[in-house]
Amino acid sequence: MGESDAATGMLPARLIARKRDGGALSADEWRALISSYTRGALPDYQMSALMMAAYFRGLDATELGALTGALLASGTRLTFGTEVPPRVDKHSTGGVGDKVSLALAPLAAACGVAVPMISGRGLGHTGGTLDKLEAIPGFRTDLSLDEARRQVERIGCVMLGQTDDLVPGDRKLYALRDATATVESIPLIAASIMSKKLAEGLNGLVLDVKVGSGAFLPERERGLELARTMIELGAEHGCPTVALLTAMDRPLGYACGNALETEEAFLLLRNEGPADLRAVTLALADEMVLVAGLAGDRAEARRRVEAALGSGDAAARCRGMIEAQGGNPGVVDDPAALPQAPVCEPWVASADGYVTRVEPRAIGWGVVAMGGGRRTMADAVDPAVGFTITIKPGDRVARGQPLASIYARDARTLEIGRRALEEAIGIGDAAPRDVLPLVGWRVTAKGVEELRGDGAAG
Amino acid sequence: MGESDAATGMLPARLIARKRDGGALSADEWRALISSYTRGALPDYQMSALMMAAYFRGLDATELGALTGALLASGTRLTFGTEVPPRVDKHSTGGVGDKVSLALAPLAAACGVAVPMISGRGLGHTGGTLDKLEAIPGFRTDLSLDEARRQVERIGCVMLGQTDDLVPGDRKLYALRDATATVESIPLIAASIMSKKLAEGLNGLVLDVKVGSGAFLPERERGLELARTMIELGAEHGCPTVALLTAMDRPLGYACGNALETEEAFLLLRNEGPADLRAVTLALADEMVLVAGLAGDRAEARRRVEAALGSGDAAARCRGMIEAQGGNPGVVDDPAALPQAPVCEPWVASADGYVTRVEPRAIGWGVVAMGGGRRTMADAVDPAVGFTITIKPGDRVARGQPLASIYARDARTLEIGRRALEEAIGIGDAAPRDVLPLVGWRVTAKGVEELRGDGAAG
Repeated sequence: MGESDAATGMLPARLIARKRDGGALSADEWRALISSYTRGALPDYQMSALMMAAYFRGLDATELGALTGALLASGTRLTFGTEVPPRVDKHSTGGVGDKVSLALAPLAAACGVAVPMISGRGLGHTGGTLDKLEAIPGFRTDLSLDEARRQVERIGCVMLGQTDDLVPGDRKLYALRDATATVESIPLIAASIMSKKLAEGLNGLVLDVKVGSGAFLPERERGLELARTMIELGAEHGCPTVALLTAMDRPLGYACGNALETEEAFLLLRNEGPADLRAVTLALADEMVLVAGLAGDRAEARRRVEAALGSGDAAARCRGMIEAQGGNPGVVDDPAALPQAPVCEPWVASADGYVTRVEPRAIGWGVVAMGGGRRTMADAVDPAVGFTITIKPGDRVARGQPLASIYARDARTLEIGRRALEEAIGIGDAAPRDVLPLVGWRVTAKGVEELRGDGAAG
Repeated sequence: MGESDAATGMLPARLIARKRDGGALSADEWRALISSYTRGALPDYQMSALMMAAYFRGLDATELGALTGALLASGTRLTFGTEVPPRVDKHSTGGVGDKVSLALAPLAAACGVAVPMISGRGLGHTGGTLDKLEAIPGFRTDLSLDEARRQVERIGCVMLGQTDDLVPGDRKLYALRDATATVESIPLIAASIMSKKLAEGLNGLVLDVKVGSGAFLPERERGLELARTMIELGAEHGCPTVALLTAMDRPLGYACGNALETEEAFLLLRNEGPADLRAVTLALADEMVLVAGLAGDRAEARRRVEAALGSGDAAARCRGMIEAQGGNPGVVDDPAALPQAPVCEPWVASADGYVTRVEPRAIGWGVVAMGGGRRTMADAVDPAVGFTITIKPGDRVARGQPLASIYARDARTLEIGRRALEEAIGIGDAAPRDVLPLVGWRVTAKGVEELRGDGAAG
């Protein structure tokens, strides 16, 4: 152990010691480390020690750019011809009930943005876009980069999983960090996300940074720091990036669970569905249209987005994408074509009062426990189970009023669902005072702007 | 990655996260982790991340005791019958020119202490007792624990290398820490040293904690902290422990290099040799006699130690040990029986003045570069090369005066030796003011005592 890498002459233990002692590694050193790690020359145990040292010491701007670039360079990138419209993607830091991507990709495409969206699976208490897409019978997410490129050129959007040739260094490093408690580091999160997004060959990127108890980084200040870090990285790599900080102190929309969320996203594409889901999705769509340069100001962007929804173009784009990827496009209009849970039961208020909380973590872990998510990567996912929770913190409710429905596989999972709702939903004498604004802050390279709460500038 | 250990039900990533966040692991958790790691169930990459988290967060007293006990429990222990005299060992944190063990083990044995001394090899810029012993033609250090026990019972002392069955958990963990920059942590150092020493079945332990530029922990405060930590661990495990803080801002004695140091240790056993080596060795011998309960006070201990030297008993004990371990006992009296360097050259003062420094790290790395130490564990060691440096910081010297001799294999290694001395030895207009006291502090469970500098209480 501890020998130097013949190819680079570096002694990994010395580099780890320098990071441990608060020093910085050079861009060349980061590149050599990541290259060596990706090809298996640098062992996991040295990389995990380095990641833990980086967790404690952070990375300076040069290191962060170098690490991101090195991860990006570990694989191939999507490239597009000049005739393809501006490519813009959205990335969410993850939440509960967050089905935005499924509606947003076709909506932005209907506005003229090209959307090459590479998504992930559920992680911890949060759901994953790939799992939601796979609730659609026949839908393929394992496209090659070539297939993805051609579909973007033809239909304007594609939604797929990470491929083997795209940032393999990040995939290997992320699995290691997950196993060694080095995930929750802002520079490491930023480098991981941005390396994947930059590999999509984007002209712009919109970030949905969740804040609140259900977010991976609950504190607003940490969310802002992550947003700023990613925006800087985007600028450095020629990809203008903007972030919205959105509320994850309660689930987004009503539905939580894969098929239920997919159905709700399609509702939005048909110009229906919960108001909060619509507000967040449209705010993000505005930003995508703006960063793509397809509107001169926010009002024009919003008109374009609402037209794409109202005209049915967004829903049509979604049908086209599903058909192109082997799925049944009928699901957009007919929820019965999605997997259905055999057991459904309403859940009613046990008292009169105000909803004091709908705790996203308890809801998210409840879906996982019902079989709708993974505890280990080997677990199969039951797409049909979950909840629709139709109340929000602050709502006035009466004893016996239905607040939610539980969708379960059987009596056992139904009981798990009941317990999760009991843990998650609070009813008290007064409305909570500290509910987060739905779309509270907008962050760009120029600074932070406080919004009115519905996504409009304050 | 990240699965839980079926045998213990623990999820390692959660334990790493708790340590990372400043929490403590329970004694059971440390035991399960070390047991799982020793048998290969817990992978290196999780252990290295945990060690880095422990580097930053430290260990509380319970954790430290549990880790030490878990390492100790990973293998077998030396056990002795009640008829065997009290067993006491000495451990040094490592330095340059530190050949104390070779003289001290037979000296303490000649005083009636049983000394089962398990030693290590050179590490970094510091030499190792095993390498020095192996300069003796025929000498075997790879004894079994059974052979070691029998030799202690028969001769009173044995000097051997770590065996496969003794604290295997520590051996595996230390190699990992060496490769992942997690060595320099006081609790981790203390647990590693004390698990090995406690496995020797001791009734007492004397620590030589080096301080100064050539020590692994140069600062006195850190040395004191390490001493206190090990003393606490010793007390907890029923092994009374005392520490002396000794100077490593210059080499100890004159000789640096394996055979040269072995020869100098034998000089001391013949009641000759450099005064500083004698002072440190006798101060440590006093402590061994005291902790063994073989003298009522320090003056009596010293009389006993000086008698063992003066009577020739210590040298005789050394001859007996060498003979029992297959070596040529004639080396104790005839240095010519030790490996000789083909090239020897004096090194003279380039100016009149005072010796301002003799930097141990430069000397130690010089010996390594000449072939007298290892850069990797696979390197062979040339026992004959090294230096004798006969001046100390503060000495007045005249231009042209011989200050040292270089012992080399050939012209190339001679040149390496010259450069090392040029780097290490400074001559200036004034004597240095900040030379450390040779034996400056004595640490026991009761507290810290400042000494006069020659090892006597101040």
